[in-house]
Amino acid sequence: MLQKPKVVIIGAGFAGLNAAKGLKNTLVDILMIDQNNYHTFQPLLYQVATAGLEPADIAKQVRHIFKQQKNFRFRQGTVVNVDWDKKYILLRDATNISFDYLIIAAGAIYNDFGVTGVKEHAIYLKSLADAANLRSHILQQFELASAKPELIDTGILNFVIVGAGPTGVEMAGALMELFSHALKNDYPELDLSRAKVIMLEASPNVLNPYSSKSRSYSEHVLRKRGVDLRLNTTVKKVNADSVELDNGEIIASKSLIWAAGVRAHPLVEALALGLTHGFRIKLTKAMNIANKAYVYALGDIAGVEDKDGKLYPQVATVAIQQGKHAAKQIKKQIKGLAVTDFNYFDKGNMAIIGRNAGVAELSKNLSGIHLRGFLAWLAWLFIHLIYLPGHQNRFIALANWTYNYFSYDRHVRLISFMQKSSEREAASPNKNQKSSIKA
Amino acid sequence: MLQKPKVVIIGAGFAGLNAAKGLKNTLVDILMIDQNNYHTFQPLLYQVATAGLEPADIAKQVRHIFKQQKNFRFRQGTVVNVDWDKKYILLRDATNISFDYLIIAAGAIYNDFGVTGVKEHAIYLKSLADAANLRSHILQQFELASAKPELIDTGILNFVIVGAGPTGVEMAGALMELFSHALKNDYPELDLSRAKVIMLEASPNVLNPYSSKSRSYSEHVLRKRGVDLRLNTTVKKVNADSVELDNGEIIASKSLIWAAGVRAHPLVEALALGLTHGFRIKLTKAMNIANKAYVYALGDIAGVEDKDGKLYPQVATVAIQQGKHAAKQIKKQIKGLAVTDFNYFDKGNMAIIGRNAGVAELSKNLSGIHLRGFLAWLAWLFIHLIYLPGHQNRFIALANWTYNYFSYDRHVRLISFMQKSSEREAASPNKNQKSSIKA
Repeated sequence: MLQKPKVVIIGAGFAGLNAAKGLKNTLVDILMIDQNNYHTFQPLLYQVATAGLEPADIAKQVRHIFKQQKNFRFRQGTVVNVDWDKKYILLRDATNISFDYLIIAAGAIYNDFGVTGVKEHAIYLKSLADAANLRSHILQQFELASAKPELIDTGILNFVIVGAGPTGVEMAGALMELFSHALKNDYPELDLSRAKVIMLEASPNVLNPYSSKSRSYSEHVLRKRGVDLRLNTTVKKVNADSVELDNGEIIASKSLIWAAGVRAHPLVEALALGLTHGFRIKLTKAMNIANKAYVYALGDIAGVEDKDGKLYPQVATVAIQQGKHAAKQIKKQIKGLAVTDFNYFDKGNMAIIGRNAGVAELSKNLSGIHLRGFLAWLAWLFIHLIYLPGHQNRFIALANWTYNYFSYDRHVRLISFMQKSSEREAASPNKNQKSSIKA
Repeated sequence: MLQKPKVVIIGAGFAGLNAAKGLKNTLVDILMIDQNNYHTFQPLLYQVATAGLEPADIAKQVRHIFKQQKNFRFRQGTVVNVDWDKKYILLRDATNISFDYLIIAAGAIYNDFGVTGVKEHAIYLKSLADAANLRSHILQQFELASAKPELIDTGILNFVIVGAGPTGVEMAGALMELFSHALKNDYPELDLSRAKVIMLEASPNVLNPYSSKSRSYSEHVLRKRGVDLRLNTTVKKVNADSVELDNGEIIASKSLIWAAGVRAHPLVEALALGLTHGFRIKLTKAMNIANKAYVYALGDIAGVEDKDGKLYPQVATVAIQQGKHAAKQIKKQIKGLAVTDFNYFDKGNMAIIGRNAGVAELSKNLSGIHLRGFLAWLAWLFIHLIYLPGHQNRFIALANWTYNYFSYDRHVRLISFMQKSSEREAASPNKNQKSSIKA
């Protein structure tokens, strides 16, 4: 019997998951590799960061997601390089894994755009650990303020968000809610009006991809809810306890949340592949690599151009469709058929600003209707609930949201810092294990 | 107006919480200090360690528990010493907090009974981080076994539990269930019969405080469910990858769970107070200190004798009643009345061995009925649900248990290591914060 083609998928994000699902019932052996043993539902990271949901509510163990798929295997590990001649990938633990088809869907990390101090001092929101640690960091600032009120004068209750895209806007809205309700009850001894959310955006608008109506609505709601929104404002330098603006102003803050943008995962730099804007991998319109038809790159890491020659936005819906597309193409290639171009079906954009307030813009393909306010907010909750993997996660998220909505309270406010898998791997796994387990 | 007496409570465990609640509506200012901002429901730690519940399901933020109590304040911090002359406590962050009454309820840590290697290599189950990290450690061994099956021969799937008290028994039963159901589905590529739970007990029995019928029942169930139970067996030395027994046998294992016993929190050694067995603080029968009537010690740290001159067991029910007792005594002292002795109302013992199997022994005060099997198991679930703090926690725990029971599955199997607050504080808080937040 002929050996089945081996498909290796790097990354358990939206793109990787959908590529693997698309190859169900296909005569291939799939191996997915991720440095975590779970898939992270990134669109809800900001809710973990603002104590609305627990980390486990927005993550699902990869093996569990695919427990019904016989041709699927998972391996927890970190890919450090690929040998293109011998066609195998190299893991940090020095094992080689050979492939016939390779799908690179390693995702993105923050992009500091060369601003000094971001790498050292900024807080990001890309991983589950980022979100859990941001939540703990925020709560810890209030514990510090309660223990030593004089620290408030040094700006420990100033939370600066850089970038007014969906992530920044959602984060700003959720933070204001956390402060004005849950934390207000937790810290009666504090004057919560001294807790500030300062939002810095280089462009003249929030939510740039959206219509002017949606943008001005979002801008209005953010300001109305107390966000100190500063447009046309760029960051010059980030320090441990302050942010320097181009206009010379200095904002005291130990909490700078960097939501200004992302870049492709650094793995791409090791792979000796052609790169395009944002370090994304240069691809054919079919999403494979010109001289390596058996290699696909998907999602945030994919540098594929749309009809107008623009790269696709780094969002979940694009990653999901690209994952399905890659699966289809590999099936064709196995049959010896020609691959076809990726064609994005744009459903539109959606962002939540906070309680009862959101913007939703259906694309022309879908009536082109625009929603603002309560209906958009409701639609957002509904859509995210549907896409959240795992019945139990959906159930728990719904229960939490319902509780939070009516009680104005938050279920989880534990200060508990998570260790990033990357940090753990840096040391020898065993020694490292012990160190974090010992009492 | 006369200044209200200041009551400082060290520790947010069962004893501390109940002391604070007992002083509600009393003209005192209560300050509770704990190194975590949450109360941990320790009886369910083993369920977090075996992926039955999430850390947040068995923890509750202290400020939230007391949000209705006006005379209560909380401070996150670590107590390092007490100045008995000036009557203030010293925190690690170098602040002093003065008190009129002091309640020491810092709890217990593992007791290695002088066995070499326990401190360096054993895993404990006393804190939320312990439980979360044990869970992640267990799951990681299976990921390693899947990636490199040859490691199974080195014993990475051997899980050794030392001590067959309630904690050890509950842990052993839950581990066998985790292996035989949830993990069996997750790792079809592994022969799960190679995953072993080896339980070592120095005495001739499991669950020593229980009746011989309950003990032999528990022993029978554990063996029937596949636990390699070895009685009359003592540990000589623990190494990184093996356990040496007194009988000369060596068991290969990187996972030694130390459930052999506890000792009072090391804080007691700094306090220059009289100590008794297990480093517990010597107390009058009224639970305060002979020459310091304004100082109480409660729970696992309290060295108070019962009528027979024996120290009380270090369990939740004792801690809860002692907390209430101390509150009553302080109220009397404020009124200038004499204190009375602590009188423990024994309700009996309860332990769960696993699915549908438990032992419950009501004390003579309560009919003296003994239950075994399904009824005892049900009673255990019921009691623990009632005592679990927080409606939402109760609701989520019930939802998870119901799901786990009928699906034989586990909700949460994320490998995510938690950082212990003690480890964080070791470094400078700010630097430390960043280090665990940076991407």
